[in-house]
Amino acid sequence: MISSTLVDGTLAGERRAVARLISLIENDGEEARDALSALYPHTGRAHIIGVTGAPGTGKSTLVNRLALEYRARGVAVGIIAVDPTSPFSGGAILGDRIRMRDLSGDPGIFIRSMASRGRLGGLARTTGDVVRVLDAAGFETVIVETVGAGQAEVEIASTAYTTLVIDMPGLGDDIQAIKCGLMEIADILVVNKADRDGADNTVACLQMMLDLNANASHPAGYHSTDPPAASGSVTSGRHWRPPIIKTIATQGEGTAELLNAIEEHREFLHQTGLFENRERARARSEFMNVLRHDLVERLLTPAHTARIGATVDAIAARNTDPYTASETLVRDILGARRGET
Amino acid sequence: MISSTLVDGTLAGERRAVARLISLIENDGEEARDALSALYPHTGRAHIIGVTGAPGTGKSTLVNRLALEYRARGVAVGIIAVDPTSPFSGGAILGDRIRMRDLSGDPGIFIRSMASRGRLGGLARTTGDVVRVLDAAGFETVIVETVGAGQAEVEIASTAYTTLVIDMPGLGDDIQAIKCGLMEIADILVVNKADRDGADNTVACLQMMLDLNANASHPAGYHSTDPPAASGSVTSGRHWRPPIIKTIATQGEGTAELLNAIEEHREFLHQTGLFENRERARARSEFMNVLRHDLVERLLTPAHTARIGATVDAIAARNTDPYTASETLVRDILGARRGET
Repeated sequence: MISSTLVDGTLAGERRAVARLISLIENDGEEARDALSALYPHTGRAHIIGVTGAPGTGKSTLVNRLALEYRARGVAVGIIAVDPTSPFSGGAILGDRIRMRDLSGDPGIFIRSMASRGRLGGLARTTGDVVRVLDAAGFETVIVETVGAGQAEVEIASTAYTTLVIDMPGLGDDIQAIKCGLMEIADILVVNKADRDGADNTVACLQMMLDLNANASHPAGYHSTDPPAASGSVTSGRHWRPPIIKTIATQGEGTAELLNAIEEHREFLHQTGLFENRERARARSEFMNVLRHDLVERLLTPAHTARIGATVDAIAARNTDPYTASETLVRDILGARRGET
Repeated sequence: MISSTLVDGTLAGERRAVARLISLIENDGEEARDALSALYPHTGRAHIIGVTGAPGTGKSTLVNRLALEYRARGVAVGIIAVDPTSPFSGGAILGDRIRMRDLSGDPGIFIRSMASRGRLGGLARTTGDVVRVLDAAGFETVIVETVGAGQAEVEIASTAYTTLVIDMPGLGDDIQAIKCGLMEIADILVVNKADRDGADNTVACLQMMLDLNANASHPAGYHSTDPPAASGSVTSGRHWRPPIIKTIATQGEGTAELLNAIEEHREFLHQTGLFENRERARARSEFMNVLRHDLVERLLTPAHTARIGATVDAIAARNTDPYTASETLVRDILGARRGET
């Protein structure tokens, strides 16, 4: 009942329905699941943009500007800010407030901050679900911005069709190391705060890293799902070298160029057929997250709670070890199921 | 065969055995598993310290200094640098090189950088395994430093017995939001780069946040496994208010005070019995990671590869959705097992 109202409302683009459905998703309710199943055939129209980069590079401001630029061109935009370093409270709400000043009141924009709850993997699954809801609700562009810079966030951003990695002049050494990792998932590189000293230096440095990557087996912008690049000119039309865009997000400078670059990448993906690869990779990642979750949920029932508690006690007391204990429990769980009639 | 040599070598503290075993763990070999089972009864002696904080705060330098201070006091130290934003290559090696200048050649120190490979959850499991190896090899203190600042990294750091959160003067707005999340897992707060302008301001700000938290239901330093704090003075002896330590890691200033604070927290945990809670929480987290992994591995056999591939195609084509497809596959997998004889 609730579910079909939410589905109809979401498909009609009603904000209250969208917001309620997202809340259901965050609370991990079964209702959300039915609604998501019903909405799924209506998804696949939105272009999904992932935005990541070290903290302090001005991602949020840049995403706001990008959203305003999309709005100026008449495109409806959904923004999901993934805030995974606030596992307990607070951060997500704060993020919503900061954003509201520029963007509130426009029905063509929907913003949601998501804090992580529960265990690893949950955030990736939930973020994917919220992307699907905004897609079904008619938002033509969905921007997924990760506030933190960690494994989970990089994985979430890199399941987008177009991934932006944000850099800035004058970052420290350990951020430099983080950048190396991020380079490999970038479709577009952004040097934000480009009015600061050393901006051209940062651009030159990124160019050099791209040159190095171009000669390596995994060029920048390569996704593990892309077909292997054959040598020679046959596949050269399918190679994408990430452009480097300078922006000053606080003043809106470079935002139009950035949006154009995103559109170019989108066209490139469609023209080369690489879009289907990314869509398939996204579908696989999403499906495997759901499948793993469902398998564990189905097998680890409340009936096992006491048994798990006793096992944890035994492990903490060094009477057994996690590996042996897991093997025993897995055997019992699967064996018991086999014996059911 | 290999396994028992590695176990004996590790227990004898032989570096080559330790390094080989860690490589086996990273490659996810079954041999490593047997070795880990055999080593587990010999673990539980090391004090595990988690170090996290926004990038740029100087975590690595501080961890190096802390390690040198432990060495000066005759304590053997293992360091695991978790570098999760380099999902593909490079970062981990870089990290090892930077560290080596100060610390190489000392047999009482073992340093390993770990990049994430494979999917979410894998890093947490692997890091736990490497902690266990260093513990069994006789390192009395094991420091787990996370390079990134994301959900996975926060979870990894917070399974330590003592969690340090590193801050510094003059961080930007979005890092401020990250800090709010990190505050809740901190046992000790460090203001590094304390010779910079605004250090006292940063300390005052953290004090204020601690005051706010002290009145909230979940005080700082509270772990979800700690018993709920009753009102009144009964449990006041069990309350730990995170101290704030100023350091200048590049000059080694404040490192001795930081080490003393860690030792005080360790004593506090043991005297109050909270240590057992944390050990149990760590054991639970570790066990559940292994158990979930094992259940999925056992059930998703290569026989399902073709079926999963076809399902992903159908999802990408919007002929089905991930939730319905997962339910069908889970039913088939568990139903088929039931039918086995």
